[in-house]
Amino acid sequence: MELKFRKANKEDLYQIIEMLSDDKLGQLRESFQNSLPKKYFDAFDIINNDPHQELIVIENCEIEIVGTLQLSFIQYLTYQGGVRAQIEAVRIKKEFRGKGYGTLFFEWAIKRAKEKGAHLIQLTSDKKRPEAIHFYEKLGFTATHEGMKLHL
Amino acid sequence: MELKFRKANKEDLYQIIEMLSDDKLGQLRESFQNSLPKKYFDAFDIINNDPHQELIVIENCEIEIVGTLQLSFIQYLTYQGGVRAQIEAVRIKKEFRGKGYGTLFFEWAIKRAKEKGAHLIQLTSDKKRPEAIHFYEKLGFTATHEGMKLHL
Repeated sequence: MELKFRKANKEDLYQIIEMLSDDKLGQLRESFQNSLPKKYFDAFDIINNDPHQELIVIENCEIEIVGTLQLSFIQYLTYQGGVRAQIEAVRIKKEFRGKGYGTLFFEWAIKRAKEKGAHLIQLTSDKKRPEAIHFYEKLGFTATHEGMKLHL
Repeated sequence: MELKFRKANKEDLYQIIEMLSDDKLGQLRESFQNSLPKKYFDAFDIINNDPHQELIVIENCEIEIVGTLQLSFIQYLTYQGGVRAQIEAVRIKKEFRGKGYGTLFFEWAIKRAKEKGAHLIQLTSDKKRPEAIHFYEKLGFTATHEGMKLHL
C-alpha cells in the first residue's frame, strides 16, 4: 500500500470536515455544508500556525484523502520536563475502513511522536466506542486513566 | 481565604517541582534536587513562551505557593472548530491539603477556561487515584472516556 502521510493544507479542509461529520457521534456536533462555516477555517489557521500542532492527512496512490488525525505535542514539567504527544480527531474515510489504514496511520504517528522527542503518546477514547478502544489496545495503549470531561 | 491565582515565573520552579515530586506516583518520575536539573528550566521556557499554555500557581496571603496546575488550550477542528482546555500536573502542597484549596483552584480554572472560549475542559486521572477521580466528579466532570497511554 502506497500511502503518504502529510500535513493538511487549507484545500483539504472540506474533506477533513466531511470525515469528522460522517460518524455516529460526529454528526451530532459538526456542521458540514457545501460551503463550510468560517469557524473551521479560523480553527485551521490557529492549528496550522502553532509549532506544537500537526493536522495530518493520509493520501492514497490516487491522491485521494483517506484519513485524518491531529497530533499535539504538549510540553509539561512532569516526567522531568517531558513532552507528550496527544492524538485527537482520528478518522478513516468510511469506504476505506477495514483495510489496515488505521494501523499504518498509528504506526506512522508513533514514529512521528518519537522523532519529536515525546516520551508518551496519549489519547482519550469514548467508552461508547468499544471497537476503537480495542483497536488502541492492540497497538499497545493501556487504559490506565479515566478520561474526564466537563462541557462548559 | 485570600488566594491569588497567577502565572508561574522562573523563581517558582523549585517549589513547583518540589510539589510534583512529593506524591506516591510523582516521586518515581521526578528528579528533585537542591540544584534543579536544567531540563526543567528548558521545559519551563517552552511552556512560558507558548501562548496556548498557562502554568499556574496559587499563592496564599503569606505569599507562599500552595498549589500548581497546568492549563493547555488546544484548538481542534471538531465541535465546529472548538477549543478545549486541558488540565495536567495538579498538586496542592501536602500541608495545605484538605482545606478546600483544590476546589477553589478548579473553580478558578473553569472560569479561566470559559474566558478563553473553551467549550470543554478535560483531564485524565490515573485509575490508581480513586480519591482524585471522586474529587473531579464532585466538580461536575464525568468519566465518559478511557484515558489511554503508550510509553515510548
